[in-house]
Amino acid sequence: MSGDCDFGLIGLAVMGENLALNVESRGYKVAVYNRTTSKVDDLMEGRAKGKNFVGTHTIEEFVKSVKRPRKLMMLVKAGPAVDALIEQLLPHCEPGDIIIDGGNEYYLHTERRVKEVEAAGLLYVGCGVSGGEEGALKGPSLMPGGSAEAWPHIKEMFQSIAAKVGPNDDIPCCEWLGAGGAGNYVKMVHNGIEYGDMQLICEAYQLLHELGGLTNDELYDVFEAWNAGELQSYLIEITRDIFSVKDEQGDGHLVDKILDVAGAKGTGKWMSQLALDLGVPSTLVTTAVFARGLSAQKEARVRASETLNGPSAASNPEMQAIAKSLVGDRAEFVEAVRQALYASKIVSYAQGFVQLQAASAEHGWGLDYGAAALLWRGGCIIRAQFLDRIKEAFDKDANLENLLLDEYFEKAVENAQEKWRKVVAVASIMGIPVPAFSTALCYYDGYRMARLPANLLQAQRDYFGAHTYQRTDQDGTFHTEWIQLRKEPKA
Amino acid sequence: MSGDCDFGLIGLAVMGENLALNVESRGYKVAVYNRTTSKVDDLMEGRAKGKNFVGTHTIEEFVKSVKRPRKLMMLVKAGPAVDALIEQLLPHCEPGDIIIDGGNEYYLHTERRVKEVEAAGLLYVGCGVSGGEEGALKGPSLMPGGSAEAWPHIKEMFQSIAAKVGPNDDIPCCEWLGAGGAGNYVKMVHNGIEYGDMQLICEAYQLLHELGGLTNDELYDVFEAWNAGELQSYLIEITRDIFSVKDEQGDGHLVDKILDVAGAKGTGKWMSQLALDLGVPSTLVTTAVFARGLSAQKEARVRASETLNGPSAASNPEMQAIAKSLVGDRAEFVEAVRQALYASKIVSYAQGFVQLQAASAEHGWGLDYGAAALLWRGGCIIRAQFLDRIKEAFDKDANLENLLLDEYFEKAVENAQEKWRKVVAVASIMGIPVPAFSTALCYYDGYRMARLPANLLQAQRDYFGAHTYQRTDQDGTFHTEWIQLRKEPKA
Repeated sequence: MSGDCDFGLIGLAVMGENLALNVESRGYKVAVYNRTTSKVDDLMEGRAKGKNFVGTHTIEEFVKSVKRPRKLMMLVKAGPAVDALIEQLLPHCEPGDIIIDGGNEYYLHTERRVKEVEAAGLLYVGCGVSGGEEGALKGPSLMPGGSAEAWPHIKEMFQSIAAKVGPNDDIPCCEWLGAGGAGNYVKMVHNGIEYGDMQLICEAYQLLHELGGLTNDELYDVFEAWNAGELQSYLIEITRDIFSVKDEQGDGHLVDKILDVAGAKGTGKWMSQLALDLGVPSTLVTTAVFARGLSAQKEARVRASETLNGPSAASNPEMQAIAKSLVGDRAEFVEAVRQALYASKIVSYAQGFVQLQAASAEHGWGLDYGAAALLWRGGCIIRAQFLDRIKEAFDKDANLENLLLDEYFEKAVENAQEKWRKVVAVASIMGIPVPAFSTALCYYDGYRMARLPANLLQAQRDYFGAHTYQRTDQDGTFHTEWIQLRKEPKA
Repeated sequence: MSGDCDFGLIGLAVMGENLALNVESRGYKVAVYNRTTSKVDDLMEGRAKGKNFVGTHTIEEFVKSVKRPRKLMMLVKAGPAVDALIEQLLPHCEPGDIIIDGGNEYYLHTERRVKEVEAAGLLYVGCGVSGGEEGALKGPSLMPGGSAEAWPHIKEMFQSIAAKVGPNDDIPCCEWLGAGGAGNYVKMVHNGIEYGDMQLICEAYQLLHELGGLTNDELYDVFEAWNAGELQSYLIEITRDIFSVKDEQGDGHLVDKILDVAGAKGTGKWMSQLALDLGVPSTLVTTAVFARGLSAQKEARVRASETLNGPSAASNPEMQAIAKSLVGDRAEFVEAVRQALYASKIVSYAQGFVQLQAASAEHGWGLDYGAAALLWRGGCIIRAQFLDRIKEAFDKDANLENLLLDEYFEKAVENAQEKWRKVVAVASIMGIPVPAFSTALCYYDGYRMARLPANLLQAQRDYFGAHTYQRTDQDGTFHTEWIQLRKEPKA
């Protein structure tokens, strides 16, 4: 038995409710269910009133009300709740039905569930959803992966509800990404890149505010100007807005009253830990996560600030002159910071795609990198003009090993590098922490080095632990009894 | 039934064999066992011949040959092999017997085993052992933790075999560290600090070699001089030695023939991942792990080096002049690099101890930080003069929240910071990657900031995700509808 709904949605918190309304608004009939069934009734009598919805009060009723092959999407808390729900759904489903998880799930759980659900004769999709409440309602970025057979069945609906980009606003931010947990992994990397973008903007802010002396009004103008150029993006746009918001509870701007303790929900940490497992240096996201950790040590920092002194550069005419010679006047400094931010951002995205490639190779997902870039162009938090360029880079070379090697980005960094270097130098001299700008620069300089000093490190490891080394001039593995060959040290 | 041996050792690879010989040499009678029993016979007829050893061929015989309460130490591959061995030992052991794991075990496995073995009426110790083959034989650094009741029984023996330090060479590098997996955790942090030390030395090497133009012979002299001062340590000493070793297969120095691809065995990665879980910014070890990862991308780097250009600073007279004004002549540059290395090293150790404190608080180990510093003073890879100062710092204040706040280290960094800053600045301008020097400096500058730019980050999170924020001027959690309060953007 099956009903005539085109789609079923379980979990009527704000994201789920908005997504259901989005689907219905595209001409689909939608069944909804929620464990606390009063939520179903509230929706039916509220925002869904008069619309093409079917409210259900049991899992069985919910499943039976949807047409086969059923498209049943869950938007519930990630983790064990999803497993429990799948277990409840399976007895009522039929072969070929599609279960879709729209939560922020750890990708390995999805890897496992794809196998389990496929073994039961059904299809399973882990679909990253980005864009927050408003995106869910009006057009999110959707990142589906899992059972490839499911894609033809859900493609039209998912692309219809997704954000649209392109000159004619007709390119949907939703493409099939690959097998297993590919969709969740891409969403995790999206969030990790978001961490990097936000940290980079914060460093630019601190430099402009502390060193450049810019007021909030001036910062508004700077971010407005930046949003009209290469840096155009949602995060730059809302940063501009933030500098205009006055404190309703007192004088001045609200941003100045906010405690400098950053929260985090954990996806940046996941991406960092997985980069460490893969052995790929995703230093931007990790630096951003650690920067949030340091910000959270507010009381320790306040105590430390009373004891630890900064550089004397601030009061040293000679150092002031060097700083001035590096970054020029205020307008030149603002432009230098912009270039440092842009170059660092390119490195951050390059690292994110390298991690995606390593993960895809490890798990055999056959990930489509151009698709990932495409669906980040709209709907999501990191949406930005410059993702068009990334899409183009992967269109030219689907297996591009590093974005920095694409001609467009190579030239962009080349053009920005002088100012970028000077900004890091001045921050170091003047005592402003710029961990993300610095780590991006160190990655760029390390990556373009045919020879790094790891030869010494391998010599050390072989000296104290007989860990062996390779040679540049012949194949094989070597060990040396260094202590027997060393010059006898002076007594 | 029990025999008259004082100690039993299972696992006769090089570390185990050497440790058994070390124990016997201090006047103890030692039972040995190995799964491949021919190893037992080889030892008995070889290095143990005529010594106070009992070779055994079954687990039962092995256990029974040791006096109660038995001290039975395992030196086998970490992981499942240890669980299997414990299962074999338990039926033959008696209440109060002590099982000791000397392997490089992940601390959570030890946490679990302490509970399991105590539930069986026995005691369990996870003991980090550092110092390599030679240390095991002549005096390792030992880092025991687990069942506190075990310590009085093993203290005398373990302290007798450990490395000795102090003016009279009578302070053993072995102290009880705390409950559960505390010993393994301290060993892991030791290894993570070792990663940081090695990376810092490599960055100094690259700066001196590439920018300073120093030859291997000159580098020998520099490291020899450094080893006579504040930086005196085993790793500086072997680095000095490495620069004296000639290539026996060709011309020149061996270090120049070694492939710049660093290996790793995973403890640095563990420490980094656990720092991320704890939310404490252990940026030095993570940077060192990522630097090894980047070094391993040798072929990609060689390709990138053909495409990506460095700064024009190298051929730009104006930039050359700025660099010169920052770091002076060659001797001044060498001294500046030394100070950068020293200050960065202090930050690295400070981060390691912060992570130990966070882990101890999480697990309730009651970790003794002074003891950790003490037992790293000798025997192990990171042994260094400056650990005396760390021990003194924790003697003065057992709960010192950060080494940087101890007067000695505060002054040391204060004195070094000007040169440290200039070295990072010059490296940035000239295109030499110094990720560890930079991240250490950013940590120092971030830690001493009463106010970081995380206020903006919290505003962003609240703007796009309603994640809320706190205020500096009142308690509570706040959310703002930013978009309604923002200045209307220009069309």
